[in-house]
Amino acid sequence: MRTYIKDLKEHIGKTVSISGWVDVRRDQGKMIFLDFRDMTGIVQGVILPNYTETIEVGKTLRKEFAVKVEGKVNKRPERNIKEGILNGDLELEIMEIKVLSEAAPLPFDISLNGYNLELTTELDNRAIVLRQPKIQAIFKIEETVIDSFREFMKKNMFFEFQAPSMVPATAEGGAEVFQIDYFGKKAFLSQSPQLYKQIVMSAFERCFSVNKVFRAEPSSTTRHLTEIVSLDAEMAFIESWTDVRDMAENTVKYILKQVAEKNAEHLKLLGVELPTMIEKTPTLSLREVQQRIFEKFGRDVRGEKDTNAQDEREICEIIKEETGSDFVFIYGYPTRKKPFYVYPNPEEPEYNEGMDLICRGVEWLSGGRRINDSKQLEEHVKLWNMDPSKVKMFLEAFKYGVPPEGGFAFGAERITMQLLGLKNVREACMFPRDMNRIDERLTDEGY
Amino acid sequence: MRTYIKDLKEHIGKTVSISGWVDVRRDQGKMIFLDFRDMTGIVQGVILPNYTETIEVGKTLRKEFAVKVEGKVNKRPERNIKEGILNGDLELEIMEIKVLSEAAPLPFDISLNGYNLELTTELDNRAIVLRQPKIQAIFKIEETVIDSFREFMKKNMFFEFQAPSMVPATAEGGAEVFQIDYFGKKAFLSQSPQLYKQIVMSAFERCFSVNKVFRAEPSSTTRHLTEIVSLDAEMAFIESWTDVRDMAENTVKYILKQVAEKNAEHLKLLGVELPTMIEKTPTLSLREVQQRIFEKFGRDVRGEKDTNAQDEREICEIIKEETGSDFVFIYGYPTRKKPFYVYPNPEEPEYNEGMDLICRGVEWLSGGRRINDSKQLEEHVKLWNMDPSKVKMFLEAFKYGVPPEGGFAFGAERITMQLLGLKNVREACMFPRDMNRIDERLTDEGY
Repeated sequence: MRTYIKDLKEHIGKTVSISGWVDVRRDQGKMIFLDFRDMTGIVQGVILPNYTETIEVGKTLRKEFAVKVEGKVNKRPERNIKEGILNGDLELEIMEIKVLSEAAPLPFDISLNGYNLELTTELDNRAIVLRQPKIQAIFKIEETVIDSFREFMKKNMFFEFQAPSMVPATAEGGAEVFQIDYFGKKAFLSQSPQLYKQIVMSAFERCFSVNKVFRAEPSSTTRHLTEIVSLDAEMAFIESWTDVRDMAENTVKYILKQVAEKNAEHLKLLGVELPTMIEKTPTLSLREVQQRIFEKFGRDVRGEKDTNAQDEREICEIIKEETGSDFVFIYGYPTRKKPFYVYPNPEEPEYNEGMDLICRGVEWLSGGRRINDSKQLEEHVKLWNMDPSKVKMFLEAFKYGVPPEGGFAFGAERITMQLLGLKNVREACMFPRDMNRIDERLTDEGY
Repeated sequence: MRTYIKDLKEHIGKTVSISGWVDVRRDQGKMIFLDFRDMTGIVQGVILPNYTETIEVGKTLRKEFAVKVEGKVNKRPERNIKEGILNGDLELEIMEIKVLSEAAPLPFDISLNGYNLELTTELDNRAIVLRQPKIQAIFKIEETVIDSFREFMKKNMFFEFQAPSMVPATAEGGAEVFQIDYFGKKAFLSQSPQLYKQIVMSAFERCFSVNKVFRAEPSSTTRHLTEIVSLDAEMAFIESWTDVRDMAENTVKYILKQVAEKNAEHLKLLGVELPTMIEKTPTLSLREVQQRIFEKFGRDVRGEKDTNAQDEREICEIIKEETGSDFVFIYGYPTRKKPFYVYPNPEEPEYNEGMDLICRGVEWLSGGRRINDSKQLEEHVKLWNMDPSKVKMFLEAFKYGVPPEGGFAFGAERITMQLLGLKNVREACMFPRDMNRIDERLTDEGY
């Protein structure tokens, strides 16, 4: 009967069997110290000189050997207790070690403090590097990000659906879409579940999806991946676009809270401090943002159609100083600069009710109110020079009573990157795909 | 302040505001009866003759109009109470109706009992049909299937990772894989996260994924989709392949229990009785299955390399009669007939420790123990005539101490189909993709 390493404290004085990997081996005179690791934690063990056969096995072990170990759980003497770490107060007196699988010598150091690889080398050696504790911490946090998005959605009665990855020729498409050979015909990889989630919303009222989206932009910046996990939500019967903003704000707040609670150890390991979301995140229109930047920094971007990276950094600086908030919502972009389905402000139709959530100078999330009136949608399709036959199913849905509605979306890798202050989005993706790599390198470019 | 329809019972005697769709309108003399539907349920309302303005609005309403309604929640007189249904004991005295969005006349009946479409027509009209209660029930059940898989994995300390959809040329590939134009190079859509989940297991010990897989088989049977949601699990430190079987069995048991509890209403609506899983599902080797079929039916399939559809139906019949179980595990297939990574039984290496779970004559789930020894894996790669360079990252992972391990996988659509006794897997997929359709029809073939 296997005991998990985290549960050893319940077996003091007893003989147990654990399974795991050799994490560290240290020979000390006639004794061998071994740290073992399983998915629940780490424990130190020692082979005393009188276990002569086990000592012989111990001498053959290297880091990452998979082993099964019989031993007695002993309290450590007072002077050897390490406070604040799992099993810091106990030690395994190793009686027998069975090697389940040998490990070749590691090509580089993957220990907590010894690890020091360039991202390119890291990705060239993905399988081994995934055993490194800080790398694991990133993906455990990303798991919490996705889980807590889902949890919050369900708490708020959103229905989860599976958005398709393969789509017919889309109206939005263009050069940035991957093409598939589909039984001799053409199909494409979905760039967004936007139209699907609006269709599902029209029937289920509130819906969300956690699905892959694909971007064929031929650029290889620190923020680009060709395959992304998109977290998407859509809700009907809103009174105003601010209902969507509030839902988005509360979603991000919930995610931050869950990560802080569930991944405290991982955050400590990574040395990360999470951004601050205050009670009510400030909301400014694009024009207000531009005016504030002009007033504060004398830089005149008034009249620009969108924010650029510098604007986003500066407005975050202003808001942080004033309110303590790391976050700010910006809304009210020029209608014609955004997709056809974004709702124009009825009182000032050249500006829309789309919004972005910016944190520490970078975009976290986008969304807003959508057009729900069938005729207005059809007009926009024409105005945007789109082929209505390519959004037929979508337009069909809106003929049968779709109330005021909106939604939002964000990328799991991007938000994990930004939550943790990582320099490259590839660090927040277990198997990143880009122009230069799909597992294997496609080109000689590094990162 | 909006009140959800399910909560109306807490507001008896009070005036509330609800939002939803017109589900039914019935004119009766000078009164108009209206059923309203939101995501939480249905309620009956009535416009009494004295609300003359509201009567005028009421006359313009059709099924699926989106409306906001002010009204008073009244108890129904004793004689009008409908037992056992939500709001069967109350009625909304409608004071005011605001039309949020008009609905065109429906092209066919989508009411609970009036709905009667061929699958082809249903898929041609997906957006509207998603409002049909039985159709919604199927996808609510599928949501529970996926959720409860995830829940059970997490209860058992499995780590969730995101398996990639786009993959480099795979060793397993061939004609059944979709090809992508990847920046002028070739990439493919993943047929299975198998190798990725084994890599992640080698670092995280237990892992699972809920991800899309893609099959380009040029066949259009009732069981084929080109895009599927695959539920995948992998676990290290097993003692025997039966540990994997037990985990798979308990996973399916948990899913059945959750669906029975959370979707009782939906199952009733669909008239479905879930299959019976007894305390311990019977397990037979392939040769035992063949022997039992021979004994019972006199049909000699002994020596065949696999089961066919008739074998699966017959062994299920035998087991059901004997034990009451709708399920049976079959293990021990010819090693060379299965993928290279399946673990051969060391005492009889021509048979492997792969397994299938069969229910009511059809396969639900596959899995088994995998080869964990690096050398044995490399030998198999050669024996299977594979190019080792195409599984490089996978083989790399196994060089560094991978303990005995195994896993299993099943498709969300297939299991939902079989749980509900649907005739076509397309009924269990919201936006099914196949040879003849990606939303739009690609050919004139029906189903």
